[in-house]
Amino acid sequence: MAEEKLPTRAENFAEWYNQLVLKSELADYAPVKGCMVVRPYGWALWENITAALDKRFKETGHVNAAFPMLIPMSFFEKEKEHVEGFAPELAVVTHGGGSELEEPLAVRPTSETIIGHMYSKWIKSWRDLPVLINQWGSVLRWEMRTKLFLRTAEFYWQEGHTAHADKDEALEEMYRMLDVYTDFAVNEAALPVLKGYKSETERFAGAQITTSIEGMMQDKRALQSATSHYFGTNFAKAFEIQFLNKSNALQFAETTSWGLSTRIVGAIVMTHGDDQGLVLPPRLAPIQVVIVPIFKNDDEKSKVMEVAERVFAELKAAGMRVKVDDRDNVSSGFKFNDWEMRGVPVRLEVGPKDVEKGSVALARRDKPGREGKSFVSQAGLASTVSGLLVEIQDALLKRATDFRDANIHDPKSYDELKKVLENGWAFSWWCESKECEAKVKEDTKATTRNIPLDQPEGHGTCVVCGKPAKKKVYFAKAY
Amino acid sequence: MAEEKLPTRAENFAEWYNQLVLKSELADYAPVKGCMVVRPYGWALWENITAALDKRFKETGHVNAAFPMLIPMSFFEKEKEHVEGFAPELAVVTHGGGSELEEPLAVRPTSETIIGHMYSKWIKSWRDLPVLINQWGSVLRWEMRTKLFLRTAEFYWQEGHTAHADKDEALEEMYRMLDVYTDFAVNEAALPVLKGYKSETERFAGAQITTSIEGMMQDKRALQSATSHYFGTNFAKAFEIQFLNKSNALQFAETTSWGLSTRIVGAIVMTHGDDQGLVLPPRLAPIQVVIVPIFKNDDEKSKVMEVAERVFAELKAAGMRVKVDDRDNVSSGFKFNDWEMRGVPVRLEVGPKDVEKGSVALARRDKPGREGKSFVSQAGLASTVSGLLVEIQDALLKRATDFRDANIHDPKSYDELKKVLENGWAFSWWCESKECEAKVKEDTKATTRNIPLDQPEGHGTCVVCGKPAKKKVYFAKAY
Repeated sequence: MAEEKLPTRAENFAEWYNQLVLKSELADYAPVKGCMVVRPYGWALWENITAALDKRFKETGHVNAAFPMLIPMSFFEKEKEHVEGFAPELAVVTHGGGSELEEPLAVRPTSETIIGHMYSKWIKSWRDLPVLINQWGSVLRWEMRTKLFLRTAEFYWQEGHTAHADKDEALEEMYRMLDVYTDFAVNEAALPVLKGYKSETERFAGAQITTSIEGMMQDKRALQSATSHYFGTNFAKAFEIQFLNKSNALQFAETTSWGLSTRIVGAIVMTHGDDQGLVLPPRLAPIQVVIVPIFKNDDEKSKVMEVAERVFAELKAAGMRVKVDDRDNVSSGFKFNDWEMRGVPVRLEVGPKDVEKGSVALARRDKPGREGKSFVSQAGLASTVSGLLVEIQDALLKRATDFRDANIHDPKSYDELKKVLENGWAFSWWCESKECEAKVKEDTKATTRNIPLDQPEGHGTCVVCGKPAKKKVYFAKAY
Repeated sequence: MAEEKLPTRAENFAEWYNQLVLKSELADYAPVKGCMVVRPYGWALWENITAALDKRFKETGHVNAAFPMLIPMSFFEKEKEHVEGFAPELAVVTHGGGSELEEPLAVRPTSETIIGHMYSKWIKSWRDLPVLINQWGSVLRWEMRTKLFLRTAEFYWQEGHTAHADKDEALEEMYRMLDVYTDFAVNEAALPVLKGYKSETERFAGAQITTSIEGMMQDKRALQSATSHYFGTNFAKAFEIQFLNKSNALQFAETTSWGLSTRIVGAIVMTHGDDQGLVLPPRLAPIQVVIVPIFKNDDEKSKVMEVAERVFAELKAAGMRVKVDDRDNVSSGFKFNDWEMRGVPVRLEVGPKDVEKGSVALARRDKPGREGKSFVSQAGLASTVSGLLVEIQDALLKRATDFRDANIHDPKSYDELKKVLENGWAFSWWCESKECEAKVKEDTKATTRNIPLDQPEGHGTCVVCGKPAKKKVYFAKAY
């Protein structure tokens, strides 16, 4: 219950975020350091996210499966960059069933290795390809600087792992899934993410190409929101994923992986939330419409509840996720604050006067106060509200897009770059050298976010060193 | 692909099962001892199971959440019976992020402890009750004698954990979920399970009452298919789940838990399967109808494929899960065997003559050979097939029920009991003493399965010791 106010975003964005996640009951701290409990309201949001993604995965030909959470430590040694990237983060099971294990087992930090091992068993011929498997589950990366949803030791995600007969098909898959993530983020979560290539420094351990979608939070920091990787034959060679091609010769498969995690919940909170609490995009909101009946006595109550129940039934029948808040131990004002904290897109209030007039009071979560409030007829309410949900969804995307565009700058000099990165992003020509990337990071704490797939025409000069540059890149401080 | 024949059930039931699970690609062995990989076909079946259950859980007021997979070892010490039951099965993480942990962490074998800990934080007042949370995930119980789906170290399941203000409500919840499991098993999986109380010996570690549903496999062994437990205040006391009741006094909550796992896949295989392979109940089958086009040349192919695609579209539009097998590298006979191995309930064959006659050949998986084959009109095919799917679902349940009833005996003496238990179940009066239960187990390897909630009228004498008995119990050898 939302009894105390949040700090404002302007006062303390980090503390606003932490308290909001706790007060809205999305998540709680677990008794194990670095871990979180995703509470029912947070999990209901995640279920809507998973449903929207899973539908897209299946429409693009993928199937789900489940691979063990425990992986022999020796598997990590097989791909050199992979082990360097993940060894420091592993949680290790050394004892089982009361005795010490012969070989320690890692709790999976990601599943390329164990899935690669199984693919080498399953893939024998070009006819077995492509293999397009996704897995929903959790992984563990040892991490002590916890931030709920954004950085936790155990987190929930999906990881797609595919194997292909040739490079073109594998690259096509990597781009396809990047597009699936972008489509999901923009059209379901109202997150105007930017897609592009990660720099070599920022690549996934073992990948030849990593692509990402990056979002701008309201504190203007970037959040990497999903990634899609092309491995070439790196993992196929490490795990001997070979097949007989059409010419009957043995050939290594080309593989990809791609993942999106519960981090996206953090992106939704930090992109759309306001000082009153969460603002959830209607398409993902666990509750899209809350109905608050308002009455002073039993006589009023019975009249008001009759209308509230009828409206509930109408909206539900029209496919909306709707709830009546009939608690009798808290005030209406308390209820309003409570559902604002939880980010429910539309609130309908039904009082005795509304019963008389055949109206309801309607409040939009995305426009707090008077601006978002109106009185509408009970007649045709399902259609009014479902139209409004679409309008709110669009408005959230537009607001976030405008905010993003207003805060991406095109600095003309390195000094200007440094200034811009104090409170915004830069979209700048870059010579693609690690030295310039490292200099920016050292001077500003900002990193390269990604290099857009679609580049502006022509060439420029690197904003850091002034040498010729072929690509523009986003620089930003990131979570 | 199903190139080699299975051993028959009569020859070697255990080997029939193992090979069937592998050949039908439900699951595979993992590189970590005791673990399995659930392959896409098996996971699609599990997804249908989870959807049918999740719907029932939500309809009965439950919500989902996610608790960490790692649990401090000290949590297990808090409930005496629980630690005795689970300590020998724990997998223990001793190292994380490169260093030894201060306190070792167990990978969850079940989540009563960590959920109890969180409930003690969340539950303060009677107004916070009941708490009705379910979790989907996997757990780990160290186990070396692997049998795919039936006994694996890591397995997938759901675990419901609820807290209530009083005993009656908690008991009601335990029974409600037992009924939900029974309804699911009977009406979705066509498993004629028997519900009842477990004996004290067979109870869950820490439970005051354990109830179960038990199924009879075709080898006449029993498989415990789901359990629902009442804990009284055991876990509430161990984890200090206390609330202010309506009289403003501190009171311990009453808790329950209930679970169903991927074991149920094993139950489906062993209840319905035959010597040709899986026989899946239509309501859960990942593919309900497979269409096999039959042709000898391109001219025939184009005519036949046109009908196959039209039938596919009609059946899909009618809500059926349907697939066209248009592989061109295997024979029709191979395809028939392949889909029989995978247990697809209905096969439709479309050949050139069918195109001329406006018919299709239809084969029921539950009646192999001539008996299950017929020619039906293409007109109204969606309605014909959807009716048939219902008929097959009913027929599977009836066949399994008849088999079950024919193999439950009422032995008149202890000698007869021993004989009966060699190849069937006994339903016998029992004095409820641990001594008699242990004697049966020692002499026959059979255990008490459960004591039905609805008992026959009157009393009897214990089939073991001859003393007066109030209850009848199922004895059977079990998985």
